[in-house]
Amino acid sequence: MSDVREQALNAKMAAPELALLRRNEKDMILEAMAQALLRDARVILQANANDLQAAQQRGTSKAMMDRLRLTEERIAGMAEGMRKVARLEDPTSQSLAGWQRPNGLRIEKRRVPLGVVGIIYEARPNVTADAVALCVKSGNACVLRGGSEAIHSNIAIIQSIVTAGEACGLPKGAVQLIADTSRASSMELMQLNGIVDVLIPRGGAGLIRSVVENASVPVIETGVGNCHIYVDASADLEMAAAIVVNAKCSRPSVCNAAEKLLVHEAIAPVFLPKVNAMLRAKEVTLRGSEQACAIDAQMEPAKEADWETEYNDLILSVKTVANLDEALAHIARYTTHHSEAIVTESIENAERFLNEVDAAAVYVNASTRFTDGEEFGFGAEIGISTQKLHARGPMGLNELTSMKYVVRGNGQIR
Amino acid sequence: MSDVREQALNAKMAAPELALLRRNEKDMILEAMAQALLRDARVILQANANDLQAAQQRGTSKAMMDRLRLTEERIAGMAEGMRKVARLEDPTSQSLAGWQRPNGLRIEKRRVPLGVVGIIYEARPNVTADAVALCVKSGNACVLRGGSEAIHSNIAIIQSIVTAGEACGLPKGAVQLIADTSRASSMELMQLNGIVDVLIPRGGAGLIRSVVENASVPVIETGVGNCHIYVDASADLEMAAAIVVNAKCSRPSVCNAAEKLLVHEAIAPVFLPKVNAMLRAKEVTLRGSEQACAIDAQMEPAKEADWETEYNDLILSVKTVANLDEALAHIARYTTHHSEAIVTESIENAERFLNEVDAAAVYVNASTRFTDGEEFGFGAEIGISTQKLHARGPMGLNELTSMKYVVRGNGQIR
Repeated sequence: MSDVREQALNAKMAAPELALLRRNEKDMILEAMAQALLRDARVILQANANDLQAAQQRGTSKAMMDRLRLTEERIAGMAEGMRKVARLEDPTSQSLAGWQRPNGLRIEKRRVPLGVVGIIYEARPNVTADAVALCVKSGNACVLRGGSEAIHSNIAIIQSIVTAGEACGLPKGAVQLIADTSRASSMELMQLNGIVDVLIPRGGAGLIRSVVENASVPVIETGVGNCHIYVDASADLEMAAAIVVNAKCSRPSVCNAAEKLLVHEAIAPVFLPKVNAMLRAKEVTLRGSEQACAIDAQMEPAKEADWETEYNDLILSVKTVANLDEALAHIARYTTHHSEAIVTESIENAERFLNEVDAAAVYVNASTRFTDGEEFGFGAEIGISTQKLHARGPMGLNELTSMKYVVRGNGQIR
Repeated sequence: MSDVREQALNAKMAAPELALLRRNEKDMILEAMAQALLRDARVILQANANDLQAAQQRGTSKAMMDRLRLTEERIAGMAEGMRKVARLEDPTSQSLAGWQRPNGLRIEKRRVPLGVVGIIYEARPNVTADAVALCVKSGNACVLRGGSEAIHSNIAIIQSIVTAGEACGLPKGAVQLIADTSRASSMELMQLNGIVDVLIPRGGAGLIRSVVENASVPVIETGVGNCHIYVDASADLEMAAAIVVNAKCSRPSVCNAAEKLLVHEAIAPVFLPKVNAMLRAKEVTLRGSEQACAIDAQMEPAKEADWETEYNDLILSVKTVANLDEALAHIARYTTHHSEAIVTESIENAERFLNEVDAAAVYVNASTRFTDGEEFGFGAEIGISTQKLHARGPMGLNELTSMKYVVRGNGQIR
């Protein structure tokens, strides 16, 4: 048997015991893991130094080096993250509903863990600790397949937290890290039907596409966000400018950042010069439709590819539209169903936008940057689903669960 | 463009308009469809006669002929089924939750249709009307791919209800039947990512396996049930016998019928002769483990394959177990995660069974036959999910929906 399959089977064997742990037992495991991270910080930093050195020798980009780098503060952040998850409610403690049937059967709809969660991710070693915390708290065994760039860091983190966790009651085998970072190990994990219950890819568009295309295990697709902001004719233009600047510039590399600006043509001659100046002051490159460029000739002309591209960078494409219908049609054509916003003072247009736009999160008069587990109040997040099945939008602990029907009778037959 | 792709795209284009229909509009469409079925009964029966004749010429089995056959009563039943779905609550009318964040953002979690639902099924023409009713009521466009055996019946049914529906406000294109019943058309439907949002196979194990293996569109796996009943040492033996006989014999061809009986060895010498006699009176073939056969020598010896087989027939395999642990271990090994039951008077054993068995529905002191949308009180059912993602157990209208977050602000930025 291959190592990947054997590790996943070990996780599956540990899953039933983990699923039955009580909240206080799971919280104690997370606290022990947090303490271990702090205690083992030097060992983890040493391992991380190996990864950084190898990355430097390969000529890795500065941005990638930053994602890969651990510091004492970042390790303290990982430990605090585990403690924060420990403080969250146990999702498997919840009954979702309960009712009695006319024949006396009592039906309870109860949250239960999914079983074995597979997570495929890239260079950020902090994902390792985050994912373990969320899986343990939700009662799921997990199989982690991180990127080769961070493998020494990931091994050191797992060594630290699994040793501490098992000493504190974590079922042996419940947390697995696949040390083989070849493409083959990742492909094998995607095909372990009947062993792995769900696969969550975390990373760039290429990784996610590869998992969706190659997995036969059910996948929760995360992350691509070609988010639009539509500024209506009736918008409060100061509010609109603040929202656009925030949604584009506060963190351009993330999936809930705005990538496109649609502006009603009635206000474009007033609004565009104003917002464009604010965006340029933040070093945003602007590309415009023909009509938009006619208003602000400094904009580069946008190409067809611009309308469908998630830049993840300080670039924004701008289009004027004749009315709400044209804005809705443009969004319907180019949306990645992540987050879409309207700025308007018209209740009619706000309601139409909220009802008709098909996305995980639809906003009126707020920045798309709020599509986030923390900002929604979930306390933690394993990713943002852009699919419609099982979970949509920010996924917290509840989205890492399934349910079962518990039925109590006293001899009912049919 | 192929016909299948074009039909699915037409459904996708109609989906947004259908999603926005109000409950009373959808209910009127369903009522018009019900009336059309009754009015067009002769035409539908004529088409069905063609299917039956072709089936007879192919030498189709009696059971299959029965599934294929329509009568005036069955058509009346289909019409009444549509009216029943019309009377159910509109699942997309529901807000699942709502809260305000400290920054003033109001977040509403709202049910919305999935979009385009694909249904692949076999010879039962009544599935055509059922599926359309459930999809229309939940606001989903649908693409139906029924079996070749029923194609004339399906075309006549769709012709009747779509004409009536469109005259009453059903968006054009929202209901599609694929007339090409080749394997290629089914394979193509399974690969229409980005057009079809979910695929639900309805039928035998072979069909379901083929869809799970070949689809890249998300699938909700339905149906296979290797259901166990465990009779504990403390069981009320009369209740236990009634439950076993009901679960095995009331409708042996369905997925919630019992296929295996586990009996605590302390009561097996008393219980087995009694229940076996009752089962034999209903023409059940009994196969036993070595110890079970030692108690009742008339049982055939069960083979290893018996423990994993869903018979869908009047066959039951029986095994004695030393204790609850052995029963739980046997179920964990052979369960298809559908429905599992314990008969016991021990509260401790009941709770352990309910907590530890991993299935869509777990029962104490009731027949597994209750795992059914009607019996659970959902009013209708599109199938029974045996997977853990999105939906588990009987799927009613709610399970044909997704959700979206509707976020209202007044200028919030991050």
